[in-house]
Amino acid sequence: MGSKLRIFAGSSNPRLTADICKRLGVEPGKVKLSRFKSGEIYVHYEESIRNSDVFLVQSLSHPINELFVELLVMIDAAKRASARTVNVIMPYYGYARQERKSAPREPISAKLLADVLTTAGASRVATIDLHAPAIQGFFNIPVDHLTALDLMTEYLKAQNIPNPVVVSPDAGRASMAEKLASGLDSPFAIMIKKRPAHNESVITHVIGDVAGYTPIIIEDLIDTGSTIVNVVEGLKERGANDAYVCATHGLFSDRAVERLHHKNIRKVVVTDSIELPEQPPAHFKVLSVAPMLSQAIQLITEGGSIAALFRDRGI
Amino acid sequence: MGSKLRIFAGSSNPRLTADICKRLGVEPGKVKLSRFKSGEIYVHYEESIRNSDVFLVQSLSHPINELFVELLVMIDAAKRASARTVNVIMPYYGYARQERKSAPREPISAKLLADVLTTAGASRVATIDLHAPAIQGFFNIPVDHLTALDLMTEYLKAQNIPNPVVVSPDAGRASMAEKLASGLDSPFAIMIKKRPAHNESVITHVIGDVAGYTPIIIEDLIDTGSTIVNVVEGLKERGANDAYVCATHGLFSDRAVERLHHKNIRKVVVTDSIELPEQPPAHFKVLSVAPMLSQAIQLITEGGSIAALFRDRGI
Amino acid sequence: MGSKLRIFAGSSNPRLTADICKRLGVEPGKVKLSRFKSGEIYVHYEESIRNSDVFLVQSLSHPINELFVELLVMIDAAKRASARTVNVIMPYYGYARQERKSAPREPISAKLLADVLTTAGASRVATIDLHAPAIQGFFNIPVDHLTALDLMTEYLKAQNIPNPVVVSPDAGRASMAEKLASGLDSPFAIMIKKRPAHNESVITHVIGDVAGYTPIIIEDLIDTGSTIVNVVEGLKERGANDAYVCATHGLFSDRAVERLHHKNIRKVVVTDSIELPEQPPAHFKVLSVAPMLSQAIQLITEGGSIAALFRDRGI
Amino acid sequence: MGSKLRIFAGSSNPRLTADICKRLGVEPGKVKLSRFKSGEIYVHYEESIRNSDVFLVQSLSHPINELFVELLVMIDAAKRASARTVNVIMPYYGYARQERKSAPREPISAKLLADVLTTAGASRVATIDLHAPAIQGFFNIPVDHLTALDLMTEYLKAQNIPNPVVVSPDAGRASMAEKLASGLDSPFAIMIKKRPAHNESVITHVIGDVAGYTPIIIEDLIDTGSTIVNVVEGLKERGANDAYVCATHGLFSDRAVERLHHKNIRKVVVTDSIELPEQPPAHFKVLSVAPMLSQAIQLITEGGSIAALFRDRGI
Amino acid sequence: MGSKLRIFAGSSNPRLTADICKRLGVEPGKVKLSRFKSGEIYVHYEESIRNSDVFLVQSLSHPINELFVELLVMIDAAKRASARTVNVIMPYYGYARQERKSAPREPISAKLLADVLTTAGASRVATIDLHAPAIQGFFNIPVDHLTALDLMTEYLKAQNIPNPVVVSPDAGRASMAEKLASGLDSPFAIMIKKRPAHNESVITHVIGDVAGYTPIIIEDLIDTGSTIVNVVEGLKERGANDAYVCATHGLFSDRAVERLHHKNIRKVVVTDSIELPEQPPAHFKVLSVAPMLSQAIQLITEGGSIAALFRDRGI
Amino acid sequence: MGSKLRIFAGSSNPRLTADICKRLGVEPGKVKLSRFKSGEIYVHYEESIRNSDVFLVQSLSHPINELFVELLVMIDAAKRASARTVNVIMPYYGYARQERKSAPREPISAKLLADVLTTAGASRVATIDLHAPAIQGFFNIPVDHLTALDLMTEYLKAQNIPNPVVVSPDAGRASMAEKLASGLDSPFAIMIKKRPAHNESVITHVIGDVAGYTPIIIEDLIDTGSTIVNVVEGLKERGANDAYVCATHGLFSDRAVERLHHKNIRKVVVTDSIELPEQPPAHFKVLSVAPMLSQAIQLITEGGSIAALFRDRGI
Repeated sequence: MGSKLRIFAGSSNPRLTADICKRLGVEPGKVKLSRFKSGEIYVHYEESIRNSDVFLVQSLSHPINELFVELLVMIDAAKRASARTVNVIMPYYGYARQERKSAPREPISAKLLADVLTTAGASRVATIDLHAPAIQGFFNIPVDHLTALDLMTEYLKAQNIPNPVVVSPDAGRASMAEKLASGLDSPFAIMIKKRPAHNESVITHVIGDVAGYTPIIIEDLIDTGSTIVNVVEGLKERGANDAYVCATHGLFSDRAVERLHHKNIRKVVVTDSIELPEQPPAHFKVLSVAPMLSQAIQLITEGGSIAALFRDRGI
Repeated sequence: MGSKLRIFAGSSNPRLTADICKRLGVEPGKVKLSRFKSGEIYVHYEESIRNSDVFLVQSLSHPINELFVELLVMIDAAKRASARTVNVIMPYYGYARQERKSAPREPISAKLLADVLTTAGASRVATIDLHAPAIQGFFNIPVDHLTALDLMTEYLKAQNIPNPVVVSPDAGRASMAEKLASGLDSPFAIMIKKRPAHNESVITHVIGDVAGYTPIIIEDLIDTGSTIVNVVEGLKERGANDAYVCATHGLFSDRAVERLHHKNIRKVVVTDSIELPEQPPAHFKVLSVAPMLSQAIQLITEGGSIAALFRDRGI
Repeated sequence: MGSKLRIFAGSSNPRLTADICKRLGVEPGKVKLSRFKSGEIYVHYEESIRNSDVFLVQSLSHPINELFVELLVMIDAAKRASARTVNVIMPYYGYARQERKSAPREPISAKLLADVLTTAGASRVATIDLHAPAIQGFFNIPVDHLTALDLMTEYLKAQNIPNPVVVSPDAGRASMAEKLASGLDSPFAIMIKKRPAHNESVITHVIGDVAGYTPIIIEDLIDTGSTIVNVVEGLKERGANDAYVCATHGLFSDRAVERLHHKNIRKVVVTDSIELPEQPPAHFKVLSVAPMLSQAIQLITEGGSIAALFRDRGI
Repeated sequence: MGSKLRIFAGSSNPRLTADICKRLGVEPGKVKLSRFKSGEIYVHYEESIRNSDVFLVQSLSHPINELFVELLVMIDAAKRASARTVNVIMPYYGYARQERKSAPREPISAKLLADVLTTAGASRVATIDLHAPAIQGFFNIPVDHLTALDLMTEYLKAQNIPNPVVVSPDAGRASMAEKLASGLDSPFAIMIKKRPAHNESVITHVIGDVAGYTPIIIEDLIDTGSTIVNVVEGLKERGANDAYVCATHGLFSDRAVERLHHKNIRKVVVTDSIELPEQPPAHFKVLSVAPMLSQAIQLITEGGSIAALFRDRGI
Repeated sequence: MGSKLRIFAGSSNPRLTADICKRLGVEPGKVKLSRFKSGEIYVHYEESIRNSDVFLVQSLSHPINELFVELLVMIDAAKRASARTVNVIMPYYGYARQERKSAPREPISAKLLADVLTTAGASRVATIDLHAPAIQGFFNIPVDHLTALDLMTEYLKAQNIPNPVVVSPDAGRASMAEKLASGLDSPFAIMIKKRPAHNESVITHVIGDVAGYTPIIIEDLIDTGSTIVNVVEGLKERGANDAYVCATHGLFSDRAVERLHHKNIRKVVVTDSIELPEQPPAHFKVLSVAPMLSQAIQLITEGGSIAALFRDRGI
Repeated sequence: MGSKLRIFAGSSNPRLTADICKRLGVEPGKVKLSRFKSGEIYVHYEESIRNSDVFLVQSLSHPINELFVELLVMIDAAKRASARTVNVIMPYYGYARQERKSAPREPISAKLLADVLTTAGASRVATIDLHAPAIQGFFNIPVDHLTALDLMTEYLKAQNIPNPVVVSPDAGRASMAEKLASGLDSPFAIMIKKRPAHNESVITHVIGDVAGYTPIIIEDLIDTGSTIVNVVEGLKERGANDAYVCATHGLFSDRAVERLHHKNIRKVVVTDSIELPEQPPAHFKVLSVAPMLSQAIQLITEGGSIAALFRDRGI
């Protein structure tokens, strides 16, 4: 049974998908995605995918629940259409912050998603910079966990930022900052904060020297931007310069874009793991994950080491 | 290990749930349902449900995908909180019209839902008037399939409608009409129509006498109301009186309520399987499924025949 | 790991299997099928099938339970012999009329079969004109649902039947008739009947004009033939000519063949989805599904659209 | 959720089931078991079994495949009717001789049965004297493996057989004979034979003294009786007296009963694990497993050690 | 079906199990645990556990793989002996540090354990202070995640330590320290270190004031003790007093006990989640988790909120 | 998706694996296998295995539980590294003597192993001379069951042993001896013994002539050697010559090697299914299973009949 490569975009990332396809020299697959008046999603692949290796590109960005159900329906239809494998390319894995119970009688939604994707018929998942790496273990199908850290590092190096310091906005998740600092050969600092409630935070300490430095704040995700603004202002109060704000995933919920138009933010650097407006604000820099994802798709179909794509292979 | 009964409302049906609880003499369970700015759903049961028989009441009405994911998250949280059983009371089962492939490379979304509910941790499902009864077979957990037909029949009998004829708007689904006609001891008629596209229909024939009769149109579901209006007008052209329009599920998508303000519609009769505004239009009659569902919950927890609740036991 | 195509006949359809193999240019696989005195079935593949794509051809005709268990044992043996895939070609899917509970405490046997076939080790199922299309959704392995309607249409067109009317013997299942009528560009009519008990029926109405027409009665299945004879006589009483009786599956239970030797039946048209005697009665026409199935097997192994084989692709 | 005990007979053992029920002081459950003209089995429980502990009594005797599918359908219907547990009492487990591949590309049918029973919805199995004890391990649901050896021993002791020798007809399965000999405090002997083909055997040696002794031949199963007759004649030739023939399961395939009307067979002792004619031949002794099974059912529902029912607890 | 509580000790924690049983007023269950000369583990429950709620107490301490396989075999035997539920009380969950891939082509052993425990037949797991809380999500059976933090806090408060500072030896896992500091109302500090290789670490910074303070070093686990000694010495160099060393789990691999006989360590505080010698070194304080676990077992069997046992309910 | 062959040795059989690889002309795969001080196993494949057909060679010899967990971890890591198939070559399958419950409330450990290997991610198992052939049926993944009997037969033939008699040390497992006797064209005899306790045995009879013959004792496994020594001495007492002792698997537990330095044992013949010291005792003959296993691996990857490798194809 021979097999063919077919790549389809969900509603979240048509431009990224087109870019990936162009790099791989294939046409994006034709799929009809629509909604009935009842809100029910309808999916129809408009070409045979029998025996094909199907790749579905979908990030769980806004509106997350719609995009998630759409993806499930796409997987189901692909499985029933006798696709050989159904590979989910999920540049941004949503619900990843619900990866454990932080109170009794809560869900572990990140695990629920993993189980449900598998039940629907996914054969494999590839994703970028998971909020918690243990989420890989939520799956029994293979997971390729990629990172945008090398992209960030290269871009920042090229900016020749004077006197840089990498800042982790959170003590509990300092490893990404540590890696970036090591890549840039710069010092790093950690903000100690409390989260009195969800989506809120209060800075209590800064660890490491920041006065006179240019902070490069690094996160996996920018959600509402409130935390970032707190961090930026906290750094400013402590004598730092205007900041670079970097994150793999620019979710930009609520009035995040507005908030990030902040006098102490010099640049906001994100990737296109989540689709942004074609004309993002001028001080935004969008790095593309398309080269990385297209190489990953090639390696998945032909064999080879995806880890070899990255400088630091322990993601 | 003893066990207790706990009933929780999802976002779709708080009033119906309250009514069920009142009839069973229990307090509705306390659960926090909220959404982060990212759109992610958060669920937290605010009382212990360890070893309890948990019932979750949720219809897949508007907005269907949000309600579906919310239900999954509620099930996951209940399972992880050591509920003894997690019973889903889904008065209206959405996506039921996608119960088979009507074209190649389509999903079978009604099956996908069944699989995903089971994976999330549902122990049982109870639902009312499924669009296609074969959907019961999509589950390997027990399904209790209830019907609102007796409610309809009793209500219509009490109206003493002169010269009634039960009308099925669709040849392919005439059995519900046949049962209602038999219950009312009235004649029945069938509309033959074509569906040139989704959500559209053109009437081509009427089978049975309708001139001079008062039509009682019966459906499982009113979605956009377009079909109903076509049928009503088609009946009028053929000499019928103003019509009664009956359906178990009043989904009322798009401008359905407006459309059903039609000069040839005397009454719209639905149940509260889907939550309506507290003050529905004056010509709407809402019958409550709460007595039926509370009896079913009692039988599920204590044993006994749910079929015995109904006149015609072959649903 | 390369792979090879191997096709084996169960006891139900050796002639059809031979025909399929001939069209594909392969030898039918050698398998020993026998029964011990205890009634236990014994299966032994007499050639290596390691890494092969195995196709097992078996209809659930008479004796249905024997054939079903034989198929399970064949699947088990193939799986354990390291077949790469075990594909079930089931031209006639029995138990399909038990696809939902029509009374409480009944089985859903069509679902049971689907689950059990999957457990035994089937990788895929291909079948023809399911009694209820929702049965596709009973499977989580891919199902190819073929139709013999095009075969029927072509054959009937070639007969140049004067003044034809397509007749559905059942209101609830009129869609097959509707499609045939559309293919023949002829009118159609529906019989309204009641089923006071299993395998019995009483005609109460005919919808549409039949007097002076030549009825082409269409069903998915001829079982005992009693319903057909009722319909034929009912049509005759209403002034119709002698009838053509068409069905995909000729199960011919009980004294069906005898019953269909009826003075008002001109022709009985079925396919070889169920094996008939080599010399069927003279007024029987048997159309072969071998071309369709051999094309399907080729597409399954090599990729391509099975839907493209059919005129009306929404089965 | 309270629970109740309900016991239903499959077609194989109505008398045994009635006997078990009488001992437990319950009425046999009412279930309709019928067959359509198509050969399809139909099952309908005629009383509510919601939340009940359902016990289904079915041996896989003649006709084995019919009885097996009937049992599957009974399990499916019980599961869908919300039985709390579905317990299969299978006094005789058929297909047990196909418990391993004795040639390549054979099935392991005994495992297939185990998997399929579990898929259909069985919660537990109780059975008697499995042909191969490793079959217990084929299940992941609990299996209670009972033995009729104590019954046999007691009966034979009461006969005061002069000069007895227990004879195993097969070197490979001598342990049952060893246990019986130990219980009767008698010597034992083994027949060495070859099986040139299925259901055939040729005796080549006898190990142990048999001349002048009264042989008590013990087997788990009498199938066609041919082996037994060979053994009896072989023993006679070597100077033994007329024999007692004992087996837990009297399957009596083919002309077995006739064969066992043999001048050198004094008595045929079996249990009612398989239903015999109400008036068996005069030289047949039928011991009832009803006391043992009713005790087992009681222990299963109320807790306690089933092993304690038996003298030799290592079955 | 009634049920009974039965608690059995694996080889790892007989004393803890005896203590739990005493508090619950039950006798420890009798189970034979032995090893053949081949190294194969043998398990035999020496009393009936049919319909019982079985609790198995086993930590994955030394020798971890032996204890793990022993636990699997205990679960299998309990399941096959018809235990109603098989609850694993695993005070210390080993392999928890392998909860994600930190390099390509590594296992996620913590997930493997979760899957394998579930396959063997575990119904539920209760454990204490998991190295990574996301491991809860590796299970689909319910997990009760307890904490010994309250025990630690109470003990330390009672010591009236002058000028205390809570120290986290690791930036990435500061939350446990943060909670302890908050419970003791004391400041806290973080060590920044690198792990050039497994089981090695080099301290690079200390964040927060430590000079003149008495450090309370908190970890989930003491393994070889090398890290702790590094931290203690690093603190001393920076002017701190002699330290308290606290951890829920005292694994004490290699020469850990010897290493912790260190002039700058005042006290080593651990729990009995892992069994220590009956006479631990004088400067060791062992707090018992028996009260907590016995309460948890009671709540699991009778219902109620386990979270209510703890001050900070977000474990 | 192309695929490649990669063979990795677990800790049990590095020499055998190297030999297999040499015969297949491939390099043994590079994998790091180590243990932390905590006893936790760590596995890391040091080359890409994406899309490869991975073969893991591991016998469950000493120390069995360590080797078993190591194998599970290797499987998990291979599955997560996107191996196409994970094939377990387990020359010696341990725990095989626990293949049924011989007392109540025992485990069936051989089944537990099968389930756990499958859960971890094994795609297939190949093994040699299982203690109980029914263990094949414990798996639902394909099992290739090989035999070393032909190797033994050929070797023994070449020795020109005068007056040989094949001896089975156990009545219950005489079939292996029967086959060897048939291959050597020699008589055979059976020892009747009792096992008063595990690993002990007392000989009570010998069946067949042994005086003046040279016994060739055949077993699947030599464990402690005590049974063998009993048999050898029992044969000597009955006038037999010094014996050949043959077994597929030389586990040599406890002081087995010492015990087998026995004046009445001429030769001990085993295979390298379990790794022996490079310089085994002089009277040991080690036959290699490498040719057989390398052929099997070739057939598994390329297709063809493994049974054809053997003279007697019913293993």
